[in-house]
Amino acid sequence: MSTVMSVDEACAAAEAAQQWYADTDLQTRASLLEAIADAVDAARDDLVPIAVEESRLGIERLTGEVGRTTGQLRLMAQVVRDGAFLGVVLDKALPDATPPRPDLRRMNVPLGPVAVFAASNFPFAFSTLGGDTAAALAAGCTVVVKPNPGHPRLSDAIMAVAQQALADVGAPRGVLTMVSHGLQDGIDLVTDDRIEAVAFTGSQRGGLALAKLAADRPRPIPFYGELGSINPIFVTPEAAAERGASIAEGWVGSFTLGAGQFCTKPGLLVAPRDEAMRSAAVAAVGGVPAQGMLTQPIRDAFLHGVSERIDMASIDVLSGGGWDAETDTVHATLLAVPASEVIATPELLEECFGPMSLLVEYDDPKQMLALADVLPGLLAAGIHGNADEPIVDELMPRLVARAGRVLWNGWPTGVAVTWSMQHGGPFPATTAPATTSVGASAVDRFLRPVTWQGMPQAVLPVPLRDGNPWGIPRRVDGVLDPG
Amino acid sequence: MSTVMSVDEACAAAEAAQQWYADTDLQTRASLLEAIADAVDAARDDLVPIAVEESRLGIERLTGEVGRTTGQLRLMAQVVRDGAFLGVVLDKALPDATPPRPDLRRMNVPLGPVAVFAASNFPFAFSTLGGDTAAALAAGCTVVVKPNPGHPRLSDAIMAVAQQALADVGAPRGVLTMVSHGLQDGIDLVTDDRIEAVAFTGSQRGGLALAKLAADRPRPIPFYGELGSINPIFVTPEAAAERGASIAEGWVGSFTLGAGQFCTKPGLLVAPRDEAMRSAAVAAVGGVPAQGMLTQPIRDAFLHGVSERIDMASIDVLSGGGWDAETDTVHATLLAVPASEVIATPELLEECFGPMSLLVEYDDPKQMLALADVLPGLLAAGIHGNADEPIVDELMPRLVARAGRVLWNGWPTGVAVTWSMQHGGPFPATTAPATTSVGASAVDRFLRPVTWQGMPQAVLPVPLRDGNPWGIPRRVDGVLDPG
Repeated sequence: MSTVMSVDEACAAAEAAQQWYADTDLQTRASLLEAIADAVDAARDDLVPIAVEESRLGIERLTGEVGRTTGQLRLMAQVVRDGAFLGVVLDKALPDATPPRPDLRRMNVPLGPVAVFAASNFPFAFSTLGGDTAAALAAGCTVVVKPNPGHPRLSDAIMAVAQQALADVGAPRGVLTMVSHGLQDGIDLVTDDRIEAVAFTGSQRGGLALAKLAADRPRPIPFYGELGSINPIFVTPEAAAERGASIAEGWVGSFTLGAGQFCTKPGLLVAPRDEAMRSAAVAAVGGVPAQGMLTQPIRDAFLHGVSERIDMASIDVLSGGGWDAETDTVHATLLAVPASEVIATPELLEECFGPMSLLVEYDDPKQMLALADVLPGLLAAGIHGNADEPIVDELMPRLVARAGRVLWNGWPTGVAVTWSMQHGGPFPATTAPATTSVGASAVDRFLRPVTWQGMPQAVLPVPLRDGNPWGIPRRVDGVLDPG
Repeated sequence: MSTVMSVDEACAAAEAAQQWYADTDLQTRASLLEAIADAVDAARDDLVPIAVEESRLGIERLTGEVGRTTGQLRLMAQVVRDGAFLGVVLDKALPDATPPRPDLRRMNVPLGPVAVFAASNFPFAFSTLGGDTAAALAAGCTVVVKPNPGHPRLSDAIMAVAQQALADVGAPRGVLTMVSHGLQDGIDLVTDDRIEAVAFTGSQRGGLALAKLAADRPRPIPFYGELGSINPIFVTPEAAAERGASIAEGWVGSFTLGAGQFCTKPGLLVAPRDEAMRSAAVAAVGGVPAQGMLTQPIRDAFLHGVSERIDMASIDVLSGGGWDAETDTVHATLLAVPASEVIATPELLEECFGPMSLLVEYDDPKQMLALADVLPGLLAAGIHGNADEPIVDELMPRLVARAGRVLWNGWPTGVAVTWSMQHGGPFPATTAPATTSVGASAVDRFLRPVTWQGMPQAVLPVPLRDGNPWGIPRRVDGVLDPG
């Protein structure tokens, strides 16, 4: 049986299953997420070889990514059991107040069927059963996946595993369905009246086109697009002097990881003009083997982006990269440019997806502040420095104002899946700056609050009833009760 | 000194004050909100007469509304001191994990300068210093108010009171500024690159035009529009039989309150065909005095909406209303229509702002379900019934799926300002279904999360440091600590 449904079939199934799924209690819903995780772990050795063939990412990375993916599903199960995501708030009636206040009880409910657009660069963790699917399911929303055309066989195989796991626990088929990876199915899905929200990870161009479709519907719906970012890392004079070579090596490791195909790739290293750092970076790039890229369109866009930059007068080519036709692999590209040029050239602040990064060299540390002031919205930004350097106090608020995550003496690739993670940021990093697509709070995107007023106990949802029947965190008359 | 600035001056001042204001500690920020509340209370007897002249809403209502407005500011001060709105989450480093996990600490930060569009129908509570202004200030955002043209002198007077209160506590002028009430200033404000979010309460037409401007900016920003709603109230057969006349009277009281100029006005009463309910409603409408409306455009739109409906073949005019030219007042209008007609006529599900409501009569209680299935998004919906009637179990999930607030044996007018209130709902009730513009959670609209990764204590914001220096609620390694 194929896992692919027509858009109409999938939306009808998702709508039909929505009330059943929204009504699941927290234990049932968490167990369902864990059942999917267990089934994917059990099928790992069948799935990884397909992913290796389709993505060229390598067995070690992809095996690790399965663990990350099932870990995401299990964190979401934990979030569901915890119950805080329901946001329960109760205020007792005050009949003698002026005006009298009724009994009021608030809780988050699922938005309804969610369309998830799978990404290419994490064939497991941001794809068919990735973070968006896990978060929407945790919220109590049925999910229709638009698979990524970069790994069609993997999408089919992993969806079959999940659907079997769901069938085994008695869930209706509409809880998790999939349409084809064709462009038109994606368009039809976003514009289908039965879909209540869209989650997307991918290119700025594709994401903005779909966001516009979602906004232009007769009944617009929330669109959560994660569109990538340049993720600049700033190196202070002290850090460069003390450990410049090691920073340069760390940077090369981060921007060439996975052939630079991460939305958290550090696209700029902003550092003092320093021959030792340059040399260390060039040497490190020399040690990076040529890598295959995910798809031909991604490879072509990368080579085009590199040649556009190399052609610019201000660019100093430290390591030219290039494409090896025989193996269809690319070499990492390392470019240098004066900070003053970047401040004046907005095109250099655009993402170039792939193993390329810019060494942005400053003559005066104050140029870091001027550069920070013209940065677009970012998923991540960072500082390599010492805590007592005065420039840090000036740089930090500028990065906090523009990024979803700010890191210290580290690299942005490798996004931990935790309660505290924020993977989001102001436009153009995302289309919804207050949301995250990684970590426990990813569930919040698929919920909306409802307040029940003056409702008898029997008519209230169970988590809102007197005595906290589910033992979950609630705010009662203004006071937090951890449950 | 005039309170009105040009858009450019106001945005420049808001931007200049933003970092100072974002950096205020919780006590300072709460005190500032309370200082505004105290100053408005002290000026009440000067402000109310201006509001009476400009809005025609009456001294008693407007005096009460001042209390509501300062109550909102004081609830927001309480929300600020509580600190839960910061959403602090800490996860310790796990250096031995695969991959190693860094120290991660998450907290909400203010979005930046917010444009608040004041509404006409609550000259205090949803206007210049209303709920949106209070919530944005609580979040740490500077505010630029676009005043409502319906009460220009009141806007000027109350803004002067607030600005003096802020000056007295040493706040920079840019924390709270105001532009003119002209249309062009509103457009320029939404499209100014220094504005980071917009809050709007008003008509669907005006709101959607501004929402489009916000979305079409080179850098789109969140737009929180509350656009009104028809707020249907369903009466079960048992409730109608037991207390139909009293329900009819309550309904008339609710839809004629404030000349029906509430976004929570019950625009439909869905009840069994019942002569006693009709008679009681007609008698109650007969006892409602003619009322002046807020502005001439609102009055004209109301009279137009009424005559459109009266002209429809399916409408039964129970009380025709009409306009009294001499006193420029309108009479309440009461119309009846079969449920089957409403289900087939989407225009009857559009809001008509003013003292008019539809008695929607059903022959079979199942028609309530069919009607509920075609409802648009709603701010509120309700049931008058008995908890053990089976139809209630079928109706409730339909109302929860469409409304931000569901009420029992009550009326939607009168929105309590509490921790648990939800004043929002799916489109077209609002443009952002997961948000509320009334109650403690209104602050959430103006925040976005940031995660600090591997950051030394000295560089971390104080609320994220070890030992919980501010004593606020935090989630630490997955466990809630109420602080």
